[in-house]
Amino acid sequence: MKVLIVYAHPEPLSFNAALKETAVAALEGQGHAVRVNDLHAMGFNPVTTAQDFPVRAFPDRLVIPREQSAAHAAGTTAPDIAAEHAKLAWADAVLFQFPLWMYGLPAILKGWFDRVFSEGFVNDPPKGKFFDRGGMAGKRAMLSLTAGGKPGGFAPNGRHGPVDVMLWPIHNALRFQGFDVLPPFVAYDVVRSDDDARRVQLADFRGRMGGLFTDPVLPFHNLDEYDVTGGLKPGVVPRNTIQRN
Amino acid sequence: MKVLIVYAHPEPLSFNAALKETAVAALEGQGHAVRVNDLHAMGFNPVTTAQDFPVRAFPDRLVIPREQSAAHAAGTTAPDIAAEHAKLAWADAVLFQFPLWMYGLPAILKGWFDRVFSEGFVNDPPKGKFFDRGGMAGKRAMLSLTAGGKPGGFAPNGRHGPVDVMLWPIHNALRFQGFDVLPPFVAYDVVRSDDDARRVQLADFRGRMGGLFTDPVLPFHNLDEYDVTGGLKPGVVPRNTIQRN
Repeated sequence: MKVLIVYAHPEPLSFNAALKETAVAALEGQGHAVRVNDLHAMGFNPVTTAQDFPVRAFPDRLVIPREQSAAHAAGTTAPDIAAEHAKLAWADAVLFQFPLWMYGLPAILKGWFDRVFSEGFVNDPPKGKFFDRGGMAGKRAMLSLTAGGKPGGFAPNGRHGPVDVMLWPIHNALRFQGFDVLPPFVAYDVVRSDDDARRVQLADFRGRMGGLFTDPVLPFHNLDEYDVTGGLKPGVVPRNTIQRN
Repeated sequence: MKVLIVYAHPEPLSFNAALKETAVAALEGQGHAVRVNDLHAMGFNPVTTAQDFPVRAFPDRLVIPREQSAAHAAGTTAPDIAAEHAKLAWADAVLFQFPLWMYGLPAILKGWFDRVFSEGFVNDPPKGKFFDRGGMAGKRAMLSLTAGGKPGGFAPNGRHGPVDVMLWPIHNALRFQGFDVLPPFVAYDVVRSDDDARRVQLADFRGRMGGLFTDPVLPFHNLDEYDVTGGLKPGVVPRNTIQRN
């Protein structure tokens, strides 16, 4: 199978780098083809601006989804975004490796979501192409992240909030594109932890890589279980991660 | 009072721009002093790199919080971040105006969180300076956002997830710095809505600006209600937004 790793950390000696290298070794060891997107090394531009649309379909006012859609139809998608689309088309699974910053994706990776998960190729809500019908349907995605906080802070009554609530917006954004989303791998307490603790985390992560294509994925509703208002149809029992809490 | 508006949209004719202008007019009309941070116009750099630390306290390996803390102590914080710190020190309240992209902050604003909410001045976890003891304690913060989706999609059983769950990571990141956080203002369905609907939204938002310093804030636990594991102490009844659901 083919795996794209999207990696976001500025320090080559970071624990995130070690996790990324562990994933590469584990996946190649299983015979998979691996490509690594090192966003910092690429100098990836995370900021969406009018410059993303050198050919404007609607020059009066920048409404981003309609310009994305028009650019995709006309084949004028900005080259750096089109290159990412080609990687997504190639991949059977996408692994995101990043540090949790301010309870979310680092900006360089958030901007990869903003710019690459564009209307037209990856999703197309006006045409009903999202969630289980998204452009990435049939592909898998997984978050692997480091957190400075202790695991208890991410427990149901933890001070950071339950980890499944914290990650819901990111997981649902992946689902929006059509991905089947695996449970995340979270390495906690990485600022204070010692080498022994990190070795255990790397071994755990290596184990998770063995299940990238076979582990059960997180539950999400399909688009046809929602009504026109955007809410669940009567009688559908909620099974999204956050709604089962 | 003094209000800092942090505004993130690339299009001057956007509805986000109209909301920002509405806030400026309403707040100045009440006699407040207002400063607007237009992140796109400023060309704000959202990406954290080693270049943020021209004087390295620990040159062997970039561990961001310890470099932030050392830079703050030595007075070597990068000039663009120090300028934002001065604005935060000036402000009694901070209003964030942005479009919800991929269920989160646009990257340029996420990077403002990543880089400006730095260890030392704004928070200092090793010294117990976060949540109610954070550097921004006594100041108010509020999110004002636009969403392409319909309100029903953000209801408890909505396909995007309940809006309070979706915004929890951002609200808790603000609380981490010490802010009292107001309930958000959300303008839904902004891609499809017509001018009449938008006029109602602008009027609602103008009303919310009247309560910026008086409206009740969201409930959060204080730091001393958590034990050393990061979980709530026994007997404390959960009152965070997400845990009351």
